[in-house]
Amino acid sequence: MSIDNIRVIMINTSHPGNIGAAARVMKNMGLTRLYLVNPKQFPNAEATAMASGADDLLAQAVVCESFEQALEGCRLVLGSTARERKIQHEFIDARVAGELAITESEKHEVALVFGRERTGLTNEETGLCHKLINIPTNPDYRSLNVASAIQIVSYEVMMSSLSLASMADESESSETQELADYASSEAMERFYNHLEQTLVDIEFLRLQQSPQLMPKLRHIYNRVRLKSEELNILRGILTKTQNLKKHS
Amino acid sequence: MSIDNIRVIMINTSHPGNIGAAARVMKNMGLTRLYLVNPKQFPNAEATAMASGADDLLAQAVVCESFEQALEGCRLVLGSTARERKIQHEFIDARVAGELAITESEKHEVALVFGRERTGLTNEETGLCHKLINIPTNPDYRSLNVASAIQIVSYEVMMSSLSLASMADESESSETQELADYASSEAMERFYNHLEQTLVDIEFLRLQQSPQLMPKLRHIYNRVRLKSEELNILRGILTKTQNLKKHS
Repeated sequence: MSIDNIRVIMINTSHPGNIGAAARVMKNMGLTRLYLVNPKQFPNAEATAMASGADDLLAQAVVCESFEQALEGCRLVLGSTARERKIQHEFIDARVAGELAITESEKHEVALVFGRERTGLTNEETGLCHKLINIPTNPDYRSLNVASAIQIVSYEVMMSSLSLASMADESESSETQELADYASSEAMERFYNHLEQTLVDIEFLRLQQSPQLMPKLRHIYNRVRLKSEELNILRGILTKTQNLKKHS
Repeated sequence: MSIDNIRVIMINTSHPGNIGAAARVMKNMGLTRLYLVNPKQFPNAEATAMASGADDLLAQAVVCESFEQALEGCRLVLGSTARERKIQHEFIDARVAGELAITESEKHEVALVFGRERTGLTNEETGLCHKLINIPTNPDYRSLNVASAIQIVSYEVMMSSLSLASMADESESSETQELADYASSEAMERFYNHLEQTLVDIEFLRLQQSPQLMPKLRHIYNRVRLKSEELNILRGILTKTQNLKKHS
């Protein structure tokens, strides 16, 4: 099942009850893989109580020391955020997120990312996301609980999975929409490191003076969703530029 | 607002925490009117704690002695149920329920009805519903919490309300969709010329040998839809690279 290629990542969760509630709503909607980045308390009795029969998801949950570690192997990363950012990301709603996650999970690993209870995702973390999910809420009362956000996105994943299944039933052959060989998150990180180093080498980037430059460049290349072949071309250009500098 | 014509009815709720959680998810999604039919404990401190800022909905909640009383004035009654019934009802999914509720609330009062935590709605109660809402769940783990069910249906009401509002907006103010300051085609052409010249300068590109390179690079940057500011950053990097070469 392609839905098994979808993981939910919770970052730095404070209340173990929210982890349990998240496991429950995930299991309700057919999702099974929970990743926890530095949870405050886990394993925990309150988490197990709130999971209410979804404790198998907690037992299998992967606890990670960094967000990057939790992202390993993922080629589509969707981050959920309530706040608007200065740096413009591509925002999609939960419905589109559900469709994207199901379509792409046919081919590769997909991450759905949820931040801290109070403060959500940091700018650095959203920088690792290809798109941001914005769940519509009452403008006068936006404080969506993290498990509620997971509930809504998981529900949209389930809805999308069902509609895909029913379409597949209708026309068996379907179109096996050609999913490109997208670069992995790790490859993108190596690219950004390479880009940053090159900009330092050619003295374009004085890091202290322009803290916004790398986030802006990330924003450009995250929007493209580079294919592996394209990434190789860009890295080739960077290497050539670096060699030039070395010999100058 | 027509959404104010929609009430949520919870029947015979056992755990006051679920009433509080329901108030919170309702308020998140712009719903305000909560009716409680014979709640086991209400008002209650746990309900208030779980409402977390949505306690105004609890303060205004209408406590009723019978389901019939809670339904007074309603012309569309949608009941949520996990189980299939012997008596054939019309089942709709939560999405259709959200659309129906919003459409009909323009005209009259609508009720969304949720049953007991363990046993849901009785046959007598579903007999008072016009249609039944079935939320899709994992067949191996169907036990959707009552507040989760309210969350999903409320979310669909909100989505439907927004799509109705945006349709109204579109017909009104045409397509003046806030267009970001995207780079013009001419600016993009100047960028491609600059990029090509730089690649020649740094001897990355031997044009005869790789006729496919520029089309591939174009394909990358066309996909991004660069903004003018972003284009300026990229051209700045190219200029810096060219200067480097000149001085080498």
